Amino acid sequence: MDNPTDTALRQDTSVEAGRALRAGAEPSQALDPKSPVARFNADRPLAMDAGVDLAPFQIAYQTAGRLNAAHSNAVLICHALTGDQHFAHPHPVTKKPGWWETLVGPGKPIDTDRYFVICSNVVGSCMGSTGPASIDPRTGRAYGLDFPLVTIRDMVRAQAMLLDHLGIPDLFLCIGGSMGGMQVLQWASLYPERVFAAMPIATGARHSAQNIAFHEVGRQAIMADLAWENGRYLEAGTRPSKGLGVARMGAHITYLSEPALHRKFGRRFQGGSAPTFSFNADFQIESYLRHQGLSFVERFDANAYLYLTRAMDYFDLAADHGGVLANAFRGTRTRFCVISFTSDWLFPTADSRAIVHALNAAAAPVAFVEVESDKGHDAFLLDEPAMFSAARGFIDAAARARGL
Amino acid sequence: MDNPTDTALRQDTSVEAGRALRAGAEPSQALDPKSPVARFNADRPLAMDAGVDLAPFQIAYQTAGRLNAAHSNAVLICHALTGDQHFAHPHPVTKKPGWWETLVGPGKPIDTDRYFVICSNVVGSCMGSTGPASIDPRTGRAYGLDFPLVTIRDMVRAQAMLLDHLGIPDLFLCIGGSMGGMQVLQWASLYPERVFAAMPIATGARHSAQNIAFHEVGRQAIMADLAWENGRYLEAGTRPSKGLGVARMGAHITYLSEPALHRKFGRRFQGGSAPTFSFNADFQIESYLRHQGLSFVERFDANAYLYLTRAMDYFDLAADHGGVLANAFRGTRTRFCVISFTSDWLFPTADSRAIVHALNAAAAPVAFVEVESDKGHDAFLLDEPAMFSAARGFIDAAARARGL
Repeated sequence: MDNPTDTALRQDTSVEAGRALRAGAEPSQALDPKSPVARFNADRPLAMDAGVDLAPFQIAYQTAGRLNAAHSNAVLICHALTGDQHFAHPHPVTKKPGWWETLVGPGKPIDTDRYFVICSNVVGSCMGSTGPASIDPRTGRAYGLDFPLVTIRDMVRAQAMLLDHLGIPDLFLCIGGSMGGMQVLQWASLYPERVFAAMPIATGARHSAQNIAFHEVGRQAIMADLAWENGRYLEAGTRPSKGLGVARMGAHITYLSEPALHRKFGRRFQGGSAPTFSFNADFQIESYLRHQGLSFVERFDANAYLYLTRAMDYFDLAADHGGVLANAFRGTRTRFCVISFTSDWLFPTADSRAIVHALNAAAAPVAFVEVESDKGHDAFLLDEPAMFSAARGFIDAAARARGL
Repeated sequence: MDNPTDTALRQDTSVEAGRALRAGAEPSQALDPKSPVARFNADRPLAMDAGVDLAPFQIAYQTAGRLNAAHSNAVLICHALTGDQHFAHPHPVTKKPGWWETLVGPGKPIDTDRYFVICSNVVGSCMGSTGPASIDPRTGRAYGLDFPLVTIRDMVRAQAMLLDHLGIPDLFLCIGGSMGGMQVLQWASLYPERVFAAMPIATGARHSAQNIAFHEVGRQAIMADLAWENGRYLEAGTRPSKGLGVARMGAHITYLSEPALHRKFGRRFQGGSAPTFSFNADFQIESYLRHQGLSFVERFDANAYLYLTRAMDYFDLAADHGGVLANAFRGTRTRFCVISFTSDWLFPTADSRAIVHALNAAAAPVAFVEVESDKGHDAFLLDEPAMFSAARGFIDAAARARGL
């Protein structure tokens, strides 16, 4: 499937990366200064929903595959809350494989032999894109809570600016799960003419009261940590690792399912069959959760966690369109494939059905697949053959329709 | 229904209360030193599962109604994790009505004109019964984490000693929800000859991996608070209020249901229709949760929260009986009524069904009612007419069978 003329962007991205680095990597506390970045100065600020024009700002990204001569084979992957641009490359901090290598690669449903795949770190995050850990040019110190609140729409606007920067007029496919799925929906609504096909996975058109509640507990856990220093921990030389770890532990439960937890851990004790009558991590599930908390704080910024959870809470696509979700998609020519998982209780299938019903009402072409899985919300990141085959079928058909 | 001969215990409890107070109320940090207490000295220690003989210790309790001449009309109410003995009287700290006044009172399903109703603060808690905030006689300071780990069985053993102390040979009814329901099951298993009828509500015969996980997050939130001082906050003059508040916020979500949260709060903003683009409590659900956290820390001890969550985690009645839950009830003559709620995802109906199946296998008489409710786990504390009518029917029939 390799197109011998698809060489333009391999060079182009190298140039871009070089240009950004020559312009000076942002002197931020970002946890990944090594991705290529697109830098936007005061002449091209990010017009944010909070009413602020953010400038300068930068977007860190990674790519795989090659852009074809017609620039018509671009796929944008939108990452989830604690995800990043390392979808198909080892993570620079954890050294683990890219988070979506199961789905993306040569011969895989998102075939890097056919498509040029981009994933950018969302604005407000901490892996190279501008966020609360970045230096505020007005003060010379980290923004902290002076960073403007970010919305899903702001993330999408920044991604659109990145595409402009890369010379990509429109996307063959926009795909993502969870918060990434919110971005996909926002893309299809905000820039319908730039999205040929869209796959929102394990997501919703708005965040539920229960999900807001879980996020608020995580935020309070971070803010309760004295080392958070009212958001000024970078200058104070501290890190609210305990609070961020607790937030991650709590959130992690919501990414799994009761049946999966029972299958994987049950009530099994660590290294024995009896309780130790202590507050040690007696149960395997406790040890697992503590590990999740500890490893997370090594790769994530606490303030970024506050900002991105808030962005998800604020997301309500229907509210942005007079209370009618279908209005978000009127006249769209984008083709959709919506995927949910039976055991996902964070974004249950009902949330996906609401999207599908709205797309039906907007007369948009839409396929809907509910994947039987006990793996909970995180199923979209895992080895789910039914998701892969649904994705392959939808993407292959879309490629034929686009003449790729 | 008032029995003119039922005067014995009204006097008796006064005497007991006076005796306990004369013996000196325990010099503890307990949040309610005013309930009657039964005090047990070194000659009657509590033999705990952790291998410790706890002595001295005391159990604080409250009663309503009168014990009849035959001492055959006693009802033991077992409270939940953060509950206490104030089931039918205003709470001494919050001034709110007793937590089960909906179910207990003159003419109510647990009719205080007919039954003598007792509720004791569980050992390990903080409302007058001995727990980690009590003074360790060996050191003269609060136990803190030197207090032995408490189990549900320890709680029940202490309650049995209280009944001995009050001259009550056996219970007409043992009833409770959540952790209270665990105690009911433990009572029926440990002292079958002392339980005529048992009503475990919204509970399980073991704590699930997911429930252990949520508890562990709460414990880590407390322990992450520097003011926790490794459990020695009472001497340090601090309180881990932030950590305990976060723990409560997270737990509180699990007591409700997504439909109830949506119905009560939805995505409504505080005092307006637009987001403030801040980390203030923008959404009503956030404000509600913060209030839950703040009010909880005024009435509860952080270490007691650690101990009682741990007791629930350790509870596994089948594991105590060779892995077969039915073995916990072999030969029982107790009659059971098991109640669950459709929207309870902390102790889902499947947990109650497992209890019912085990009781069936043990040939025990058992009724099972699944109450349709969107109120989640906390439904057992709320106005649920279907629960009340099930309780009334079961209790009235049991009273006839006992000749009350």
